[in-house]
Amino acid sequence: MSKKTEPARPEARLPKGLFDISAGEIRATEEMLGVIRRTFEAYGFEPLDTPAIEYSDALGKFLPDQDRPNEGVFSFKDDDKQWLSLRYDLTAPLARYVAENYQHLPKPFRRYQSGPVWRNEKPGPGRFRQFIQFDADTVGASSVAADAELCMLAADTLEALGIPRGQYVVKVNNRKILDGVLEACKVSSASQRLAVLRAIDKLDRLGVDGVKALLGKGRKDDSGDFTKGAELAVKQIEPVLAMIDPDTSMDLGIGKTASGRAGMEETEEIEKFIAAAGYSERIKIDRTVVRGLEYYTGPVFEAELTSPITDDRGQPIRIGSVVSGGRYDGLVERFTGEKVPATGVSIGVSRLLLGLQCLGKFADSAVRGPVIVLVLDRDRIADYQAMTQQLRNAGLRAELYLGDSGLKAQMKYADRRGAPCVVIQGGDEKEKGAVQIKDLVLGATLTTIEDRDEYRKKQEEAQSLVPEEKLVETVQAVLARHKA
Amino acid sequence: MSKKTEPARPEARLPKGLFDISAGEIRATEEMLGVIRRTFEAYGFEPLDTPAIEYSDALGKFLPDQDRPNEGVFSFKDDDKQWLSLRYDLTAPLARYVAENYQHLPKPFRRYQSGPVWRNEKPGPGRFRQFIQFDADTVGASSVAADAELCMLAADTLEALGIPRGQYVVKVNNRKILDGVLEACKVSSASQRLAVLRAIDKLDRLGVDGVKALLGKGRKDDSGDFTKGAELAVKQIEPVLAMIDPDTSMDLGIGKTASGRAGMEETEEIEKFIAAAGYSERIKIDRTVVRGLEYYTGPVFEAELTSPITDDRGQPIRIGSVVSGGRYDGLVERFTGEKVPATGVSIGVSRLLLGLQCLGKFADSAVRGPVIVLVLDRDRIADYQAMTQQLRNAGLRAELYLGDSGLKAQMKYADRRGAPCVVIQGGDEKEKGAVQIKDLVLGATLTTIEDRDEYRKKQEEAQSLVPEEKLVETVQAVLARHKA
Repeated sequence: MSKKTEPARPEARLPKGLFDISAGEIRATEEMLGVIRRTFEAYGFEPLDTPAIEYSDALGKFLPDQDRPNEGVFSFKDDDKQWLSLRYDLTAPLARYVAENYQHLPKPFRRYQSGPVWRNEKPGPGRFRQFIQFDADTVGASSVAADAELCMLAADTLEALGIPRGQYVVKVNNRKILDGVLEACKVSSASQRLAVLRAIDKLDRLGVDGVKALLGKGRKDDSGDFTKGAELAVKQIEPVLAMIDPDTSMDLGIGKTASGRAGMEETEEIEKFIAAAGYSERIKIDRTVVRGLEYYTGPVFEAELTSPITDDRGQPIRIGSVVSGGRYDGLVERFTGEKVPATGVSIGVSRLLLGLQCLGKFADSAVRGPVIVLVLDRDRIADYQAMTQQLRNAGLRAELYLGDSGLKAQMKYADRRGAPCVVIQGGDEKEKGAVQIKDLVLGATLTTIEDRDEYRKKQEEAQSLVPEEKLVETVQAVLARHKA
Repeated sequence: MSKKTEPARPEARLPKGLFDISAGEIRATEEMLGVIRRTFEAYGFEPLDTPAIEYSDALGKFLPDQDRPNEGVFSFKDDDKQWLSLRYDLTAPLARYVAENYQHLPKPFRRYQSGPVWRNEKPGPGRFRQFIQFDADTVGASSVAADAELCMLAADTLEALGIPRGQYVVKVNNRKILDGVLEACKVSSASQRLAVLRAIDKLDRLGVDGVKALLGKGRKDDSGDFTKGAELAVKQIEPVLAMIDPDTSMDLGIGKTASGRAGMEETEEIEKFIAAAGYSERIKIDRTVVRGLEYYTGPVFEAELTSPITDDRGQPIRIGSVVSGGRYDGLVERFTGEKVPATGVSIGVSRLLLGLQCLGKFADSAVRGPVIVLVLDRDRIADYQAMTQQLRNAGLRAELYLGDSGLKAQMKYADRRGAPCVVIQGGDEKEKGAVQIKDLVLGATLTTIEDRDEYRKKQEEAQSLVPEEKLVETVQAVLARHKA
């Protein structure tokens, strides 16, 4: 038998739309999640976690195309041939959880959840196939007071994250108003309704002409891809476009339908709450907000940053909505057959962090690296390890150099790691029972000093030879010197 | 055309081996992750995050069965027909990351990562299909000082988590020793070697007889499932069993092979480091440790809790190893063709938390619920909202009751939520410009009081009617009274 040939070497790469996250961004994200968590907890929400994988049918009704579970979501078959999917949001799993545990939950049930979600979509700038959401939902509350509260929560969270009042807006509308318009102009097919939602949801990116095309036959985008439209008749397109036009004088017939009237009343009620709570300047009614998800049944809302945002090269960038949500009274009912009112809000964490960073907040924090203990004599590595440990026992971040390179490369490594100082003990120092501590932060400033005496003085300061037993206190003095 | 019939209602349930996580467990896990993170950072490791999805071929070589990517891991095809998989550990993605970014990384590269991993395996008690790992790895360090350091890190982490010295042990061995034994008794097939590894790795659960069966033809487990064995000859089984028998006097021939000798030397070196660092009582050499993963090439280690562990009904439970790791010098080479030495350690967070909780640590923390503002007059909900907001603005956790039920159900809800007190303002109180604050913690103790005067006194204390403007300070007084 011949030996199997070695398989070809795989290429080290990630699938498109997926990214590694660096230490700085992780720290910034953690900090941000902490702020959001504290705000959500202040409102009385409690954490819940659900797994990444769910049965497709538990998420399924709201997939773009039910016959092909792999469309829009990542799906695969379990050993027993049932379809599983990676969650594409945190709302569908919540509905499954509530339906499964309904009897045992306090009502209303208020939970927050944060974690990654996955979309099997064409990735693009700012569109990832894995990203973090942070949601809060109130299940079992039919009053629009619950919706108004989530809008307030969104505003409070953005301010807690450092966005000044006036530099963001929370916009509210109601699906029932659109339903009223569609009913009045006799659009009754569910798929046409969904296509209308998706079209209006793109107003921000495509403008009125783009929406108009998508309400009709469809639209070819810049890449040449054709998106099929809602195929409304011209007479039907008119009132829909008028609805999202703030200057329209056209009678949309909203008041003539039951759902239209309900939508208007709910919106008025929300306005009242918001005014009473003093949020009128922060939360605005806006007819163009519909959200693209099929499952919303009442109030819908989204928040966006309003100050112009530019990337690090000064180019303006479009962040889009950073918070979105709405009422979905039908999601739990799918499982149980019983009506369970519910409303929720979702923060797009990755997108919001991008916006915050462009505004100069939550910069990828450059945490000071560890103190590095260098290895001059390989046979004495256990001694160096002991020094490292001494520093750690004193509560300092400390690392023994573990590579195979010489002194010069070790110094370079310490620089790369952002070490505040290095600890050196060669044969000479050992003989004297001493260690040398080099202050790298001070050392880095030396090249800018022109005065000779000043240079010599700083150079001396940057380099101290001290008895072994003074190792910890000398390192502590260096760290204290550079404390931000 | 006939209307489509409504699809059958899906059942609200999770796939087997997957679980929701409650608020208490989330808080306990977060606290635990914080302790681990601080310990790893003290050692100089920096965080890195990689996505949940990778190309199967990037993870693939080390899957149990390469021809069926769905065996052991969750896999699915991308739009371009390439196989993707959910990561089954954090080591394979690290190897991909290092290979992809090698030129730009400081060397050695030291990172930690925590997050969920997924195994498409038969779930069982303590075996989940999604669980959290917390890893630290040093890439680019060939010295076993790096391995010894990770064993020290494991010990320090367990102690930082509150496990006293003496109630855990870190056990170290070296794959090269097993390789020496196998070479000496002429086991050369890669698949047999893997089967031997997996057999020995089950010693803890199956005992010597179970391992013996798995080294030979195979073994039927209690459920009747048959596991095919390594199919070693009787003469080959003997030295392998002798190796894991601490009382053996048999000459295993380890010293006769190059890898056997290297394994012995490395183990001695690690022992020296450990002794010099003062960890000899915490880290022990143990020939039975081999670990079941194919990719280890040198030192392997694992930590387990040594005190007897019982569940909440007093039944003894087997936790198994809570930390494991080893050297894998070949993982990056698969991509680049260049040898890159690497070693790492992995904490099984979910399993360790279970162990810690059985030892009475990191109990699911019962965080005090929010103050609940009750709704007595639905028309005045905006006023109640304003009160809630007043409390939040003072930094308190406060929630407006958003359900549709009456006073009695609202009180029950506040109890369920663990509210310290409720705020009540009915018509009477409103007329007086007052609010009533009910201390639920004190109220709960009333039923145990037998003395009438004492009861009346406490009852008065538990219920205060105060002017509206004293709302915040009265609630603060209640919270102060019950501060832990």
